[in-house]
Amino acid sequence: MTRQYDADTLGYIDGVIRRYLPAKDFPEVIHEAVEYSLFGDGKRVRPFLMIAVCDMLGGDASFIEPLFSALEMIHTYSLIHDDLPCMDDDDERRGKPTSHVVFGYPTAVLAGDGLLNLAFETVFSAYADIDPSARERYIRAAGIIAACSGISGMVGGQVADMMFDEKARDPQALEYIYRCKTGALIRAAVLAGALSSEDISDEQLRALERLSWCIGMLFQLTDDILDMNGDLPEEGKMTYISVYGLEHVKKMNRELWEEADGILSGFKESGVLRDFTQMIYKRNK
Amino acid sequence: MTRQYDADTLGYIDGVIRRYLPAKDFPEVIHEAVEYSLFGDGKRVRPFLMIAVCDMLGGDASFIEPLFSALEMIHTYSLIHDDLPCMDDDDERRGKPTSHVVFGYPTAVLAGDGLLNLAFETVFSAYADIDPSARERYIRAAGIIAACSGISGMVGGQVADMMFDEKARDPQALEYIYRCKTGALIRAAVLAGALSSEDISDEQLRALERLSWCIGMLFQLTDDILDMNGDLPEEGKMTYISVYGLEHVKKMNRELWEEADGILSGFKESGVLRDFTQMIYKRNK
Repeated sequence: MTRQYDADTLGYIDGVIRRYLPAKDFPEVIHEAVEYSLFGDGKRVRPFLMIAVCDMLGGDASFIEPLFSALEMIHTYSLIHDDLPCMDDDDERRGKPTSHVVFGYPTAVLAGDGLLNLAFETVFSAYADIDPSARERYIRAAGIIAACSGISGMVGGQVADMMFDEKARDPQALEYIYRCKTGALIRAAVLAGALSSEDISDEQLRALERLSWCIGMLFQLTDDILDMNGDLPEEGKMTYISVYGLEHVKKMNRELWEEADGILSGFKESGVLRDFTQMIYKRNK
Repeated sequence: MTRQYDADTLGYIDGVIRRYLPAKDFPEVIHEAVEYSLFGDGKRVRPFLMIAVCDMLGGDASFIEPLFSALEMIHTYSLIHDDLPCMDDDDERRGKPTSHVVFGYPTAVLAGDGLLNLAFETVFSAYADIDPSARERYIRAAGIIAACSGISGMVGGQVADMMFDEKARDPQALEYIYRCKTGALIRAAVLAGALSSEDISDEQLRALERLSWCIGMLFQLTDDILDMNGDLPEEGKMTYISVYGLEHVKKMNRELWEEADGILSGFKESGVLRDFTQMIYKRNK
């Protein structure tokens, strides 16, 4: 099966995630807060990447269902906590009021905590349904997701971003932030997808790890470029563009896409993933 | 081996937890914040309970090391987030300034997130070292820890506590809070400890689940009673005492201890755990 990035697949992703939600119980507000953010018109980039890599390699679809659900729960919790008044203090996301605006500050903190926890409840509860021969690979994939989300991944990236000294324009610190804050979960999506295939080689894993780095950077450099063209560039925000200049970043971005496409050309059945990568590169919003 | 609740065992617990910390890396502040709270003179009640149950049943000590470390990380993250200005707004815990006072509000949020995440990184990273025949039991124990920490456990209890209507004096809501907010992690400690034994029966598991309920309630009712006797009872706080009265709660507490001790009398080698349960009941601080 080779799934496209379309409404059917997005509906399938939502349905799978919904299966792993806890039974609604007292206190209701936490369930409402979790659903509100989890089904808030997210683009499902990370679940789709995992699916596309799995399909490309002929991996087991049921292997990745708990894993992409967990990854999307982690991504969602990170947005809730990111938006908190003590962090970015954002009142809106994707045109909707943020969690703390709707449910209050303490509930938003706990909804984020609950979602991060739910990600791992999901991983554990699905373990018994994983084919015994695939369980070691399954826990390896879950471990990659956990490592990419944590202090040496996304959480570390968040801390670095918060502490970033705009004046220093330190390219190494900026690269760390790009690699960890968004890049880490994309890396987790690609590698967990790859591990759904029982005969993935170490060489293929290395190629896909590099691919995930390219896609993560593409994702963010394209964002940066779009921010420059848009009506509302974020004032004073340090990006690759303020360090390297717009033309150089456009060149980097083109090279990243070429590298990503080159890696994918080494895999059979890579059409959907090549299109998706191109879409990330060429999108205009 | 039957370990006592003493300085040696507390040192052993600290050493094990330290083994699972991530390598110190940029950004340093998150590592400092994690260590600050994780080694903040905690009483290690949950790790010790897991150890004592494991020892009583002749379980595998290495099986529980990642699990009690994970549980203590979860307990610690919950304290950091509990103390935040938007939650209980506590500046001190165990005589030390709280995380957000020392490291700032955003870092405290992220240190909590990082610790919760680290708990599950720890579980996954240790999986390969678990005897293959014990891995299903290991993931079952990890799943119990995750379920007890989440929306249907501790996080749910926190939400209920926050929303609790003091005037309604609803005994059912109060019982939910006691069962989930503190009780759930104690349940996780006891059950994960029990699963370290390869020949634990379902009947024993049920008895130990009931034991964990008794210990969780003992822990909190004793706290409530001590708060009443102390110089600084928390004003207006709803407890079992304000619902049922001091004398009735003292009676409940004695009955809980008798029940716990009765359950333990059905197990050989239960001396350490009986002493520890009695200590929870008879402590005066």
